[in-house]
Amino acid sequence: MELWYTEEQTEHVRLSMKVKKHLYSKKSPFQQIDVLDTYEFGKLLTIDGLVMVTEKDEFIYHDMITHVPMATNPNIKKVLVIGAGDGGTVRELTRYKTIEKIDMVEIDEVVVAASREHFDITACRLDDPRVNLYFEDGIKFVEGKESVYDLIIVDSTDPIGPGEGLFTTEFYKNCYKTLTEEGILVNQNESPYYEEDAQEMIRASRKIKDIFPIAEVYQAHIPTYPSGHWLFGFASKKLHPVKDLDEKKWNDLGLKTKYYNTQLHVGSFALPNYVKEMIETGTI
Amino acid sequence: MELWYTEEQTEHVRLSMKVKKHLYSKKSPFQQIDVLDTYEFGKLLTIDGLVMVTEKDEFIYHDMITHVPMATNPNIKKVLVIGAGDGGTVRELTRYKTIEKIDMVEIDEVVVAASREHFDITACRLDDPRVNLYFEDGIKFVEGKESVYDLIIVDSTDPIGPGEGLFTTEFYKNCYKTLTEEGILVNQNESPYYEEDAQEMIRASRKIKDIFPIAEVYQAHIPTYPSGHWLFGFASKKLHPVKDLDEKKWNDLGLKTKYYNTQLHVGSFALPNYVKEMIETGTI
Repeated sequence: MELWYTEEQTEHVRLSMKVKKHLYSKKSPFQQIDVLDTYEFGKLLTIDGLVMVTEKDEFIYHDMITHVPMATNPNIKKVLVIGAGDGGTVRELTRYKTIEKIDMVEIDEVVVAASREHFDITACRLDDPRVNLYFEDGIKFVEGKESVYDLIIVDSTDPIGPGEGLFTTEFYKNCYKTLTEEGILVNQNESPYYEEDAQEMIRASRKIKDIFPIAEVYQAHIPTYPSGHWLFGFASKKLHPVKDLDEKKWNDLGLKTKYYNTQLHVGSFALPNYVKEMIETGTI
Repeated sequence: MELWYTEEQTEHVRLSMKVKKHLYSKKSPFQQIDVLDTYEFGKLLTIDGLVMVTEKDEFIYHDMITHVPMATNPNIKKVLVIGAGDGGTVRELTRYKTIEKIDMVEIDEVVVAASREHFDITACRLDDPRVNLYFEDGIKFVEGKESVYDLIIVDSTDPIGPGEGLFTTEFYKNCYKTLTEEGILVNQNESPYYEEDAQEMIRASRKIKDIFPIAEVYQAHIPTYPSGHWLFGFASKKLHPVKDLDEKKWNDLGLKTKYYNTQLHVGSFALPNYVKEMIETGTI
């Protein structure tokens, strides 16, 4: 018997991965969580049937969501991570000795439990003494807070289900207030290639641009996400991700990374014309 | 009835596209050629069942394989294109008024016939008076020529079947001789992500590095190619694709492009660490 997992990337496009074993399946109060062992990608975590993280390419996503803001401002001390139940984002953050506190707010305890059981390489770092784990709604968590964090990372699911509120103007405004003066907001920002994803990306980018004086978009190659062309948002009150990058300073830290480097950091902000035009005009 | 086309990207990964209609199917002396009309990607040309070009994302591939060398040296006058039967590479080249001659060598007349019939936007440019079409073997075409072309573009299939000889040391050596003093060789160079593709990419990159004093690799997001992370090789006798790029000069040409811009040109040479290490060490 052959077992295949298929993601409907759009109504007309499907990516299928051959599966060794279905390791885990649980319905939480929020969503359906599964772990599959695949031949090509190692272990795969899905939420509501969509690819969240695979062992083979998680390093790309986690490198780009953490090292880009950390290299832009190596003085970051207090970090808020929203979502990120698999632990990969926190794993990368804990490599910075200068970070004093990481508050991670994941709405769904079951995602963390599944990851602890099956993605021990990533999830184990949640036990770092600097990490405080809150099983709460990230949208509410940022309400009423002022000037608390130097960095907020929104490592969310797509803007459907519990992740939807993380793509609203109100949420981004609260993030702005919650950030310190040199604060940075980074969010996973969908793909520009398939229309539905692109619409979400445009909406989120333009909302953020209305609130933050600096708002840029950067890209990475993530093969298991739809189209493989994935975007992140970088927003801040003061710091520019390219002009304020001190390449030497980050390189002097001596962190070994499999995807990220400071040249690629700069290059990742050079977007294709069609993506720039989408964001500028608001239309596809 | 639902019709789906599925590409086996690896033994364990498949990309499927929903098909409106199977428009064309012919076996040439070299390979099997098909044209499908898909819902998401428009028309799709396959060779031996593998994705060659789709209407939706061909602009990415053709922008990157032509404008990168042309912006590095806007004085290019004589171009040799090997493969490229769909006509997209020649279409982009004919936009440069300064180019005097384009010799296109495609081994398989049937690919051009199928493209003329179904990809009229691309293939029609083959009728530009500067274009000379040779239905010959590109490997033999470069034998014995000296200092004839300013640019050679190897727009080939994968290194199986008739494309195999385009990935050999002997072929690259002949390209070197065929190029003028400021000559540039650009080749499609597979993906770094899946092992089999990465092996081909490493082998080709290292062969080219042994022959050309300047040999770099650059990347693009091509959603319908395996992993979406696609590489090109840039090799030359003298000119460096980043250091010798005159952004202003290219921008002054006023060419409108959907993917390419000169910032992205620079950024595309900033490779992820794992790709750089593959090429440097020769191992995955």
